[in-house]
Amino acid sequence: MSDMTYRTWSLNGFGLTHLALGEAAAPELGDRELLVRVGAVSLNHRDKLVIDGVLAPNLAFPYVPASDAAGEVVAAGPAVQRFRVGDRVIGHAVTDWIDGKGPPVLHRRMLSAGLPGVLGEYIVLGEDAAVATPSTLSDVQAAALPIAGLTAWSALVETAKMIPGQTVLIQGTGGVALFALQFAAAFGLRPIVTSSSDEKLVRARELGAWNVINYRKTPDWDRAAIEMTAGAGVDHVLELAGGESVRKSVNALAVDGRLSLIGILADAESALPTAAVTRKRITIRGIAMGHRKAFERMNAAIDATAVKPMVDAVYPFGEAVRAFEHLANGAFGKVVISLT
Amino acid sequence: MSDMTYRTWSLNGFGLTHLALGEAAAPELGDRELLVRVGAVSLNHRDKLVIDGVLAPNLAFPYVPASDAAGEVVAAGPAVQRFRVGDRVIGHAVTDWIDGKGPPVLHRRMLSAGLPGVLGEYIVLGEDAAVATPSTLSDVQAAALPIAGLTAWSALVETAKMIPGQTVLIQGTGGVALFALQFAAAFGLRPIVTSSSDEKLVRARELGAWNVINYRKTPDWDRAAIEMTAGAGVDHVLELAGGESVRKSVNALAVDGRLSLIGILADAESALPTAAVTRKRITIRGIAMGHRKAFERMNAAIDATAVKPMVDAVYPFGEAVRAFEHLANGAFGKVVISLT
Amino acid sequence: MSDMTYRTWSLNGFGLTHLALGEAAAPELGDRELLVRVGAVSLNHRDKLVIDGVLAPNLAFPYVPASDAAGEVVAAGPAVQRFRVGDRVIGHAVTDWIDGKGPPVLHRRMLSAGLPGVLGEYIVLGEDAAVATPSTLSDVQAAALPIAGLTAWSALVETAKMIPGQTVLIQGTGGVALFALQFAAAFGLRPIVTSSSDEKLVRARELGAWNVINYRKTPDWDRAAIEMTAGAGVDHVLELAGGESVRKSVNALAVDGRLSLIGILADAESALPTAAVTRKRITIRGIAMGHRKAFERMNAAIDATAVKPMVDAVYPFGEAVRAFEHLANGAFGKVVISLT
Amino acid sequence: MSDMTYRTWSLNGFGLTHLALGEAAAPELGDRELLVRVGAVSLNHRDKLVIDGVLAPNLAFPYVPASDAAGEVVAAGPAVQRFRVGDRVIGHAVTDWIDGKGPPVLHRRMLSAGLPGVLGEYIVLGEDAAVATPSTLSDVQAAALPIAGLTAWSALVETAKMIPGQTVLIQGTGGVALFALQFAAAFGLRPIVTSSSDEKLVRARELGAWNVINYRKTPDWDRAAIEMTAGAGVDHVLELAGGESVRKSVNALAVDGRLSLIGILADAESALPTAAVTRKRITIRGIAMGHRKAFERMNAAIDATAVKPMVDAVYPFGEAVRAFEHLANGAFGKVVISLT
Repeated sequence: MSDMTYRTWSLNGFGLTHLALGEAAAPELGDRELLVRVGAVSLNHRDKLVIDGVLAPNLAFPYVPASDAAGEVVAAGPAVQRFRVGDRVIGHAVTDWIDGKGPPVLHRRMLSAGLPGVLGEYIVLGEDAAVATPSTLSDVQAAALPIAGLTAWSALVETAKMIPGQTVLIQGTGGVALFALQFAAAFGLRPIVTSSSDEKLVRARELGAWNVINYRKTPDWDRAAIEMTAGAGVDHVLELAGGESVRKSVNALAVDGRLSLIGILADAESALPTAAVTRKRITIRGIAMGHRKAFERMNAAIDATAVKPMVDAVYPFGEAVRAFEHLANGAFGKVVISLT
Repeated sequence: MSDMTYRTWSLNGFGLTHLALGEAAAPELGDRELLVRVGAVSLNHRDKLVIDGVLAPNLAFPYVPASDAAGEVVAAGPAVQRFRVGDRVIGHAVTDWIDGKGPPVLHRRMLSAGLPGVLGEYIVLGEDAAVATPSTLSDVQAAALPIAGLTAWSALVETAKMIPGQTVLIQGTGGVALFALQFAAAFGLRPIVTSSSDEKLVRARELGAWNVINYRKTPDWDRAAIEMTAGAGVDHVLELAGGESVRKSVNALAVDGRLSLIGILADAESALPTAAVTRKRITIRGIAMGHRKAFERMNAAIDATAVKPMVDAVYPFGEAVRAFEHLANGAFGKVVISLT
Repeated sequence: MSDMTYRTWSLNGFGLTHLALGEAAAPELGDRELLVRVGAVSLNHRDKLVIDGVLAPNLAFPYVPASDAAGEVVAAGPAVQRFRVGDRVIGHAVTDWIDGKGPPVLHRRMLSAGLPGVLGEYIVLGEDAAVATPSTLSDVQAAALPIAGLTAWSALVETAKMIPGQTVLIQGTGGVALFALQFAAAFGLRPIVTSSSDEKLVRARELGAWNVINYRKTPDWDRAAIEMTAGAGVDHVLELAGGESVRKSVNALAVDGRLSLIGILADAESALPTAAVTRKRITIRGIAMGHRKAFERMNAAIDATAVKPMVDAVYPFGEAVRAFEHLANGAFGKVVISLT
Repeated sequence: MSDMTYRTWSLNGFGLTHLALGEAAAPELGDRELLVRVGAVSLNHRDKLVIDGVLAPNLAFPYVPASDAAGEVVAAGPAVQRFRVGDRVIGHAVTDWIDGKGPPVLHRRMLSAGLPGVLGEYIVLGEDAAVATPSTLSDVQAAALPIAGLTAWSALVETAKMIPGQTVLIQGTGGVALFALQFAAAFGLRPIVTSSSDEKLVRARELGAWNVINYRKTPDWDRAAIEMTAGAGVDHVLELAGGESVRKSVNALAVDGRLSLIGILADAESALPTAAVTRKRITIRGIAMGHRKAFERMNAAIDATAVKPMVDAVYPFGEAVRAFEHLANGAFGKVVISLT
């Protein structure tokens, strides 16, 4: 491996104009590390915030962006036990969160935060930072999982422990939202999707939404949700908007309901209606990705239910800038870069 | 109501030959009681054990058998708040178990145990002992729920809190087993069904079994289950056989696995392999029906997933004896008596 | 009973000046009701808010205040099963919350909300709305339990499921706070108490506080709490202040920490730092009293640990107005009115 | 370090007569390994079973026994992050169980199973296989924790999630039993201890037992336990005897009660009364040690409550054989070997 070079994208200043394709030398593999030939990379809103200088203003350049990659193991350190050359794997972005309680996110052991990103032809992963790819998914589909899929799974299954028949209101049709919608539909839940676009709501119906609300046409979407549930309120809201939306989300919730705060990574505050939270005994929980065991459980569920990640568009490796632009303009599900 | 009489089946001695159809006078309704015109009644193995004198040897005659009925409210006491005349309801057999922890079963507040059974044209239910019928089910389907459906639901959802992708081995194709199979398939679990009949296993596949094992042809069904799960063992076994089977069930389980002991109502002992239970940290839990909130949650899940209870045969009210004989001979799912 | 009259306090307009002592006729007992001779009544901040017209502006007069009473059963309806004449009981303010999920509080089935209050010589309780008095407590002590004790218990045990060794930061030294402090000390937790009074903090130490913070002298009490926990942050904050305090509470919490929002009954909003909640995966939960099974479990714990409710002052029945004035001026624990 | 030699006990054949003291060469430290100077080692029943050839008949000699040691870090590999030279640490016997779900015990990554034991002057531990010693404990006390303490903690806190006021019946006065007794007393639980020795029961009372039963004088100890709990039955039984005892344990349990199967490592079966388990919805759970996060939580609780492990006797390093003989004759708590 030692003479090998490969191509990788890296950022040399804030803004997409500073994202450039270059060469890198093959790294030395540690005892328990894997060299992975990347098959596909998916982009997240967080990547955009970093590139634009919003989320990590003290970023060190050059910086390799993106945290979500799927590929194939092409070499393994001598002490590796969990995988073999030829295995298909996905990187787990929060590399040091194996099970149970974990670290706060956006930290020094996270891919494309303290650790290098994955937008290259090859990456090195600790064997503890990889999971086996679901056998029912392609690399393009599998690359969509690490942040968006795992966050949705953690919200619905690992923390809320939702049970079939319960209602969940999902805000929007981005990456996390569509995973949540598809999981909810496949697990016997009743998903309600909100969007400002009737066209997207039609597509949400096709993906299994039990009900939909255009929040532009129905600004009192909290009341609409209460009516849909025969006055009871919804069991769970995936709060993907934040800010003023929280007040309505709390209002839409049933007694003993739950609000998952998701993806609100930049500094911000919401107004919390404390009296309503107290009287209805609402639970609010911050959600950010999940541990590796949760990732493995999600993969088993994906194979069991044949859920296919919703990929809005696939770009070739050379067109990463266009892929980021697509993401910035709003996507229905995930934007993926394919290397094969 | 006071002049009304109606027909009801009752037992005047042990054995099916002592089951006879007779007349009963309409009861007075208490403040919070409902008079329900019965649409359908389903039979359970437990009913057979009582009629045969096995389960309740000191039974007081005449005894009205059966605990599972669905019908329509035709009158309500003055303080009733939960239902109105015209509502479709199902009786909840463990009438005093509303939520949380509950009483041991087969007690004085259980229908057809301390309280009268339901195999008549009309029954009286406390309003706390009824749930709304799922809108997607007929009375014949709904009558199948109270014991078999709720026991399966309690095992999979309320106690085991199974999550999508997990494996559950279900013994046989009786009433509880088929509910468990259908629920598991609808909730994203991976059900493995065992039976001694290839024909029944074919039908189990059609209902969503992920895998099947003919335990007559494959006496080492525990090893077969371990192989199906790539060596890991299954996450959960619904132990419906008891006795010698427990040893193999424990063997088939994964580390941290769970065994639900179900429907083992008659005095009996099983050999428990304690070393294996300790080393693998197995959880064993006795399951017997569930509380009313669980019943209501199950009904929401049935409406959400469109699961239809598997009814093997429907008999008219006058042919209750034949229905019990069918049950005794082994049924694929539930045996129901229709009154409409 | 029918000729009996007894004395009771009632409000005929907002403000303490409209609280007057009068006569009432003995009520008829329903089938499942208890007549209780009241031994003691404790006051809560909520009572003051109602009397002042803040919490229930549309209150119907005359209104009997207070929700927390302990006494002795002197008569019982014919169908009562849970208690006998002579039993010592405490009223459960949320009368229709037996177990599991419950109603939103301040509702029509709550004592001194939709149902009459308890500040009289006799009260009527449904048998489901009473619990047995802990054998180790006097009536004066027992009257302190229903709202303050049960709220503290629900926060620490029923919802947070705290385990020995964990840290809990408790704001202030009011009724709920001191119960939380005493429970925490008796259960092997590490309580940190905040107050603006050094004198009260000395007393908190005597009651078992592991650490204390004077938030007037140490406005950055969040940083102080982080230092006390060797940089980890506290496991749980009992948020009794609300408003601006929430921001610091979230800051003081460890990763995966929990914030219980308590007693914030009036309309109000807090600023919620959503990014911190998401990154640290904080859980926020509204707490308001608890169900009857929780009350019974708390009573068993009180008997097991010999915790004695902290009663700041006891007033005779005739001096209820002075008791409310004491409460308004700030109490260290509970203010109780004794009728014996 | 490379020239250093140290003394260690090792077994060269089954039976205590084959346990001998010898010299060993200092090992090379891996990148993430610690060299620990052992301060104290505690013995477990399991060690005796291995030495006697009962538990691991295919053992490879020489074999260093014992899994529980406390000491001081004297050297650390270059990549070690969790500890520094001079830190006091305890080894975690199940070295690869960090958090959440774990491996079955007695496996290749367990100290004195697949990995070498700890009965020597120095040991090497992976940094992930050590926890910080509670500041309130000596090494002799701390060495008592890894198996006996952690198993008791896992049974009471991590799996059963017992809450203050609940009853727990503890069988005997061995190492696990006394930890369970002391924890229960310190956490607000009500421990009931059984023994065949009145003298030991007197000592159990002194350690905080709420009630005691001499099972030789009261063979129907299950009925005695039911009477002590006013007919309700106990909430939890720590089943340390196994075999015939299980039947009575199930009988002694309350509805929804729990039985923890502990320390039953040798092949054995118990008779399980399945009907009683089903009707009362009993939970049975195999317990064997715990994960490292649980160990750390236990240590925080030990510091918070000042529980001191009950050490029956301390032997000098040279008298390990006598220490094992003491253990074989029955100990009240733990037998420890001190190296200082």
